[in-house]
Amino acid sequence: MTHPNDPTLRSFIDVDPTLDFPIQNLPYGVFSTADGLAPRVGVAIGDDVLDLWQLAQDCRIDVAELGVFAASTLNPFMALGPKVWSRVRARISELLRHDNPELRDNEKLRRRVLVPMADVKLHLPIAVSGYTDFYASKEHATNIGVIFRGKDNALQPNWLHMPVGYNGRASTMVVSGTKVRRPRGQLKPANAEVPSFGPCQRLDFELEMGVVIGQSSTMGEMLSENQAEEMIFGFVLLNDWSARDIQQWEYVPLGPFQGKAFATSISPWIVTREALEPFRVNGPEQKPTPLPYLQQTRPNNYDLQLDVDLRAVQMKQAMRICRTNFKYMYWSSVQQLMHHASSGCAMNIGDLLGSGTISGPEKHQRGSLMEISWNGTEPFELPGGGKRTFLEDGDSLALRGWCQGDGYRVGFGEVEGTILPAQ
Amino acid sequence: MTHPNDPTLRSFIDVDPTLDFPIQNLPYGVFSTADGLAPRVGVAIGDDVLDLWQLAQDCRIDVAELGVFAASTLNPFMALGPKVWSRVRARISELLRHDNPELRDNEKLRRRVLVPMADVKLHLPIAVSGYTDFYASKEHATNIGVIFRGKDNALQPNWLHMPVGYNGRASTMVVSGTKVRRPRGQLKPANAEVPSFGPCQRLDFELEMGVVIGQSSTMGEMLSENQAEEMIFGFVLLNDWSARDIQQWEYVPLGPFQGKAFATSISPWIVTREALEPFRVNGPEQKPTPLPYLQQTRPNNYDLQLDVDLRAVQMKQAMRICRTNFKYMYWSSVQQLMHHASSGCAMNIGDLLGSGTISGPEKHQRGSLMEISWNGTEPFELPGGGKRTFLEDGDSLALRGWCQGDGYRVGFGEVEGTILPAQ
Repeated sequence: MTHPNDPTLRSFIDVDPTLDFPIQNLPYGVFSTADGLAPRVGVAIGDDVLDLWQLAQDCRIDVAELGVFAASTLNPFMALGPKVWSRVRARISELLRHDNPELRDNEKLRRRVLVPMADVKLHLPIAVSGYTDFYASKEHATNIGVIFRGKDNALQPNWLHMPVGYNGRASTMVVSGTKVRRPRGQLKPANAEVPSFGPCQRLDFELEMGVVIGQSSTMGEMLSENQAEEMIFGFVLLNDWSARDIQQWEYVPLGPFQGKAFATSISPWIVTREALEPFRVNGPEQKPTPLPYLQQTRPNNYDLQLDVDLRAVQMKQAMRICRTNFKYMYWSSVQQLMHHASSGCAMNIGDLLGSGTISGPEKHQRGSLMEISWNGTEPFELPGGGKRTFLEDGDSLALRGWCQGDGYRVGFGEVEGTILPAQ
Repeated sequence: MTHPNDPTLRSFIDVDPTLDFPIQNLPYGVFSTADGLAPRVGVAIGDDVLDLWQLAQDCRIDVAELGVFAASTLNPFMALGPKVWSRVRARISELLRHDNPELRDNEKLRRRVLVPMADVKLHLPIAVSGYTDFYASKEHATNIGVIFRGKDNALQPNWLHMPVGYNGRASTMVVSGTKVRRPRGQLKPANAEVPSFGPCQRLDFELEMGVVIGQSSTMGEMLSENQAEEMIFGFVLLNDWSARDIQQWEYVPLGPFQGKAFATSISPWIVTREALEPFRVNGPEQKPTPLPYLQQTRPNNYDLQLDVDLRAVQMKQAMRICRTNFKYMYWSSVQQLMHHASSGCAMNIGDLLGSGTISGPEKHQRGSLMEISWNGTEPFELPGGGKRTFLEDGDSLALRGWCQGDGYRVGFGEVEGTILPAQ
């Protein structure tokens, strides 16, 4: 059987080579339709959603527990483990091939299992058990360090030795398209004697990838590179909205709290680790050599292009404010997971690991407004008038990402959010 | 009807006035029995557990959804809201009164619904949705500050303005009696050039109370004092195990991570907010006056005595290493909750808020070994020989707490943990 990643594979559903969801991708999501059926599991193919619940009812997919596709999150499917993930993907690929008449020529079945994406509502695809956010781009950490501490002390002493991270708040994880209300919080501008409470004045985004953990680990046990990798179900785009002024006043000494707690947005389609396999690359050289528990024997980075587009209310077209690549990350997702479990911390199905802001070596590769506007000191012009340092009410921000194959793309769609005024 | 908190109430089950679970308490927990029945909800009374599932099956409690007591966590019961919490507690109190023959004289029913505590296994009483840890004792924050930064800069600038907190890790929350494995992690002693990976050398406890959140709040909405209070289902004892050396190397700039992620222990019985009502007291004066969103109109602290006992392997009897009181906390649990939601952060049923280490003004009131041994510089003697600065393998630590009423106690039982050697 042809491997589902084979670049020569074609589906009977035509997919333009510049689009995100060809047969080589097959990302998982949760969708609902206007007919009142409950949210359920689907796979994106071209401009359609393949309804796995309907497909499984028709016995076209052999999964031990049919109910996993009737669930409103992917957690029950993920619980079945990597062998099942792989088998189901192969079977879906087979069903969608241009030369397989099974679904292609069964019009009645096709009408039941293929839903135009324009007709579905996409939901948060997982129940987020825990949300952890890392800080793993050397360029981003250096930029932030230079802004606050100057060039000579840009990186903190621990940064080159471990993937620095912190526990985020899982309860405000939302799916693309959810509007984001500007948070209020304690602010203490440098020139103020005492703090005040009010709307955030320095609202930012952070361009990140989110790693979806699909298997649990045992409390007290560490993870090998192999074990960590096998636990990764897939990846999403992640926007780690940040209230820089709230964060700056609150974060010493226990880290970010309310400045990050109001919202985190993710893209609705989980691109599987398997689909990204052809795009593995080595990350930057790690010097000093990481401690043995963090060493990796394989390339664990991905060549994954990333764009950020900003559109203010008065703008007809969005403006590109960042183009970078996931491959620049200094610490890989596998290393982050190995570090996360290193103290014996149990990982759960549905844990989400934010990569940390993805910046690159060039100026146009900065993944946050903090860096793009250099802490607000370098405003940039909007086409058609106006300037930006941080986000204004009504601004819409969209993150997109894809891996470029030979004649096709494995893409993530987008994660979009529009800012509502503070209450 | 007599209020369930009435000090004159007596049960037909005799409870010694020095014991934790008289009829004025009625804390909720989850237990199982050797008969193979699944874990279910119970209430502690004296040395017995009242099986609420059996009781409800017999129609002795009127709860809309009987299933809540058959659940393996209290989350479904908590979801029913404060009016139901109050009504069920009143009904249980009524059933246990010395002058009510309903259960007292029905021996068959008593045999079915009352299980000796010695015969049950107690489980983690809630599914922890999110775990947040605060830093709300001024004495503790000052002690830590003096140790690391000296007297003049002991408190960070934000400390008197907000309840400083951070997101902890919910996946390693365990119930009392669970053994705790010494974590491994990155360590960099002051005299080392580079970090190494190995067993924690400075393993500590933190004496805390945990607030169990029983109702959710809406993303984007703040909470009033009333709303925050009504969401609190009850309290548990909490030991926030801490690997001081891992924490010290990792925590800049994003806060504690692996140094706190390996285990957090709580007591099995949730003492309801209602049962603690008679023990409300004002906290310390807050100067400067908190910002309006943090102001409280009622005394939101509790006069709740707390003990910590340490027992090393060779010791016959445990040694008291701390006796303090929850009333010393500068920021109340209600203020912590109001702050937590202030950015629009949604709270969930099953969220657990650690109060932060509870120290007091006196030396014997220090709630961590970090303070008791003054960062390891003041070892203390164990009876029968040996010294301690931090925890050694085999050490058992027990936290206990109770409110002293007139002729009775509303107690928490204990949270115990014994240290296993690192793997």
